[in-house]
Amino acid sequence: MPSSPKLLVIGGVAAGASCAARARRLCENAQITMIERGPDVSFANCGLPYFVGGEIAARDMLAVQTPASLKSLLNLDVHTRCEAIRIDRANKRVEIRHLDSGNTEWQSYDKLMLAPGASPLRPNLPGIDDKRILTLRNLEDMDRIVAATDSGMRAVVIGAGFIGLEMTEQLHHKGLSVQLVELQQQVFPQLDAPMAALLESELRHHDIGITLGDGVARFESAENHVRCHLTSGKILDADMVVLSIGVKPDTELARAAGLTLGARGHIVVDEFQRTSDPDIYAAGDAVETIDRVLGDKIVVPMGGPANRQGRVAADHMFMPGKARPYPGSLGTAIVRVFAVAAGITGWSEKRLMAANRAYETVTINDHQHATYYPGAKPLTLKILWEPESGQLLGAQATGFEGIDKRIDVLSTAIVAGMTVEDLCHLELAYAPPFGSAKDAINLAGFAACNRRDGLVNHTTTLPNDPQVQIVDVRSKPLAEAFPTPGSVINIPFPTLRASLDKLDRNRPVVTVCAFGKMSYFSARILAQQGFNVTSFSGGLKANIDPRSPAKMPTP
Amino acid sequence: MPSSPKLLVIGGVAAGASCAARARRLCENAQITMIERGPDVSFANCGLPYFVGGEIAARDMLAVQTPASLKSLLNLDVHTRCEAIRIDRANKRVEIRHLDSGNTEWQSYDKLMLAPGASPLRPNLPGIDDKRILTLRNLEDMDRIVAATDSGMRAVVIGAGFIGLEMTEQLHHKGLSVQLVELQQQVFPQLDAPMAALLESELRHHDIGITLGDGVARFESAENHVRCHLTSGKILDADMVVLSIGVKPDTELARAAGLTLGARGHIVVDEFQRTSDPDIYAAGDAVETIDRVLGDKIVVPMGGPANRQGRVAADHMFMPGKARPYPGSLGTAIVRVFAVAAGITGWSEKRLMAANRAYETVTINDHQHATYYPGAKPLTLKILWEPESGQLLGAQATGFEGIDKRIDVLSTAIVAGMTVEDLCHLELAYAPPFGSAKDAINLAGFAACNRRDGLVNHTTTLPNDPQVQIVDVRSKPLAEAFPTPGSVINIPFPTLRASLDKLDRNRPVVTVCAFGKMSYFSARILAQQGFNVTSFSGGLKANIDPRSPAKMPTP
Repeated sequence: MPSSPKLLVIGGVAAGASCAARARRLCENAQITMIERGPDVSFANCGLPYFVGGEIAARDMLAVQTPASLKSLLNLDVHTRCEAIRIDRANKRVEIRHLDSGNTEWQSYDKLMLAPGASPLRPNLPGIDDKRILTLRNLEDMDRIVAATDSGMRAVVIGAGFIGLEMTEQLHHKGLSVQLVELQQQVFPQLDAPMAALLESELRHHDIGITLGDGVARFESAENHVRCHLTSGKILDADMVVLSIGVKPDTELARAAGLTLGARGHIVVDEFQRTSDPDIYAAGDAVETIDRVLGDKIVVPMGGPANRQGRVAADHMFMPGKARPYPGSLGTAIVRVFAVAAGITGWSEKRLMAANRAYETVTINDHQHATYYPGAKPLTLKILWEPESGQLLGAQATGFEGIDKRIDVLSTAIVAGMTVEDLCHLELAYAPPFGSAKDAINLAGFAACNRRDGLVNHTTTLPNDPQVQIVDVRSKPLAEAFPTPGSVINIPFPTLRASLDKLDRNRPVVTVCAFGKMSYFSARILAQQGFNVTSFSGGLKANIDPRSPAKMPTP
Repeated sequence: MPSSPKLLVIGGVAAGASCAARARRLCENAQITMIERGPDVSFANCGLPYFVGGEIAARDMLAVQTPASLKSLLNLDVHTRCEAIRIDRANKRVEIRHLDSGNTEWQSYDKLMLAPGASPLRPNLPGIDDKRILTLRNLEDMDRIVAATDSGMRAVVIGAGFIGLEMTEQLHHKGLSVQLVELQQQVFPQLDAPMAALLESELRHHDIGITLGDGVARFESAENHVRCHLTSGKILDADMVVLSIGVKPDTELARAAGLTLGARGHIVVDEFQRTSDPDIYAAGDAVETIDRVLGDKIVVPMGGPANRQGRVAADHMFMPGKARPYPGSLGTAIVRVFAVAAGITGWSEKRLMAANRAYETVTINDHQHATYYPGAKPLTLKILWEPESGQLLGAQATGFEGIDKRIDVLSTAIVAGMTVEDLCHLELAYAPPFGSAKDAINLAGFAACNRRDGLVNHTTTLPNDPQVQIVDVRSKPLAEAFPTPGSVINIPFPTLRASLDKLDRNRPVVTVCAFGKMSYFSARILAQQGFNVTSFSGGLKANIDPRSPAKMPTP
């Protein structure tokens, strides 16, 4: 590298800005230029929905830096409203166009960073050009949504991923009535369906209309509304529509420059974020990376990876001997919808099934802290592991509080290569306001080990084979008020040991309870008495109003 | 083991009850007897302070199980108010005394579990027998404290460990004026002193009187009060006194039976919780265990380890081929005092210094979630690592929210053997209400790697050598309003690059700022310009009112 190397950064938000800032710390005499197509750099893109709903009150909270502040703090030359139109790799230069003047110029580079990001998908459907159909990527988009919305209006949000869910919540906060449409049969499709149920119930609790398993076929513009025609034939009328069905990488520039792209059009990079041209790096939503658990190619368009990849690239440019590789991504994600949070890290069951990989799983119900301390609220935790080794593959959690904590601990455990055995003895912080003597994560470890040790057979579906005896071990009032589907024998747990003669020893038994704990206890008793018994994992939860903090009912 | 083995459990709270419960799941036909000296079993001992202050309103929330419920759920024979007075190891039997009748009897065992716990220390000081000097171990103690306290009274709490701190908070909630006395020069002595400063400030903010570096010499009883004479000569008058200066293991029974005890009187056990007699197990506050990081002998009298040790013992008794060893303890602990939380896991700096072990450390200031999202509150995180390998040895955190989360992630990272490099790329859950694109834990990893890569020299004390140029890079108003101690040159960060001629290149420089971030940035600039420069780590924080959520001030 020359003594005053030129770094050109294309894209001025998460990955690009992180790269430029780190580069400056490492090389005071580098010439660092950052160009950004939009009018803003280094803004808080994950915060955009919260300004729409008024939760973030001041717009300037989202504009974290300006070209002037970046000059002052980092001695960066920042050009906004400036587009890269061509990379001349042979001569190591990029042609840029200043959008306001229309002027173009060439910028040379020693190292080039591509951080173009990804654009919201806008499928080519009839009627899509209606100005009331909006997407959300940057502050300008946000301003358009703010201007287009008012209390009392009807909104349709298409796509129930995290942006769709956040927009749904925030439009509701602003006083709009919101309809949410999702192609899959659940909201937050990253999760396994049962783990998304609480989110869905929370949305309905706030009068959000939910249409699952359906998509938009076409839009029809009327003077006073946009009419959304769904594939099913269902019609939703809206004053405005938010499209949040995913993103596509902005990689035309990279493609035109002949850089290697992946199957879905993302830039291929090595472990130091280098593209197929060793002087060109790329990071953020436009690149593909490797799955940190199993090594597959994946795309994780999220702020955390983008920021850290940008830093890795700068390290490799300016201190190549000491740079540490980007280790890949897990796809850790979390969403809050009203009072409910749901999070995921690593592999879901549906991804494992689709990839035809072996796995085992348990789901446990617990609380975020000791139930005897006020404010205990239910929490459901699912873990997945590789059957032979016991190594963790993924985790999901949903509930009201402490969801981020469990996901963070489990994402750490996953990248550490921990097994379910290791979860049993994590020594997590316990005082009554914060946790339990045995945390939900310990309990998940115990439950997984019980399966691995052959202490319990496990099912997640209730059998409809009449040969199978379904034994509901909840109390009689509970079993009557919220009956288990099918033909069921109710034997309240405390009476089970004395009631074995009510069961046919020659027929299989499935035990059922509210939370999956008593059914396990019952299965242990019956197994030791010689029964062929299976526990219904995860519990019926039929009697639970998760919104009213409740002590676990005793059987 | 016989087909119907006899398990006798001495002690019916955390470790004993966990052992008995797990034993029942594993062996339906075992005869399991649990004896407990007190009137209650399986109560929530960590919750006791919160009933005193009324935060837990119903006493029966703390009485998690009763002998009747344990009979019904687990088929346990529970004897309360029943004391073990002698172990006859040769004949595998224990003599017990029923405290109400005075009758004694022998109980035989195949396996014996000792879970006697630990008693609050009550040093033999003059005046100690005053009935108004109370300790807290069980529900009876709690009832005594509740009966002895009323709004408007004066309390003195001796010992500022977590029980002392929780009692201080709760007595304040009840309306007492509270004086807290601690022998060490800080509250929560498990922490390194600077990390306890926020707790102390929070206590003072609530008008708690704090006396540090002082202890009780004697008590003097008067009709209307107890007079506490401190070693310093200071006198504190109280209507009641809580002694919370530590605990001692209740191991007289084990000692009399000839079981091996450790240096401080704790029962020595192997990795399956077996004592020196292979048919006798022990767990909980009465045993010593190994430090999970460095392997030293340690004692961790906490609920989490006790519960998990009890389970390990039961596994080893009833499924020895599949039992997994107890891996040792970290000493993870957390305390909440009013709005502030402070937590620790693994080794502190003072323990490392006392053990003469090599370590390095950084302290970073951040927030629990994105600062642009409402409610961001400051958080301080300290990590310690082994210099050669970079392996994490310990962590401490203090702040208002998200403290338990960071401690839990770091305790997981420690037991996984992770290095500070590994912290850089933990992929933690990020949405604005939950975290930041770069979490405090990532930042701590970055800061540690910057040290290890030689990018920055670091000091935690301001020099008073007049040769050293102390450069305060905060804004002029801030530097004037909250001056850095000593002779200081104020060069606001944005002007630093243009102000290098204000500094003598032949004299060392220490850079100083509010949070430790700008001083690092400044040190990078100066180092690359050839200065011998050191950054003051952790920042002055002089201008921070941590109680008012604040955006990090820009320089």
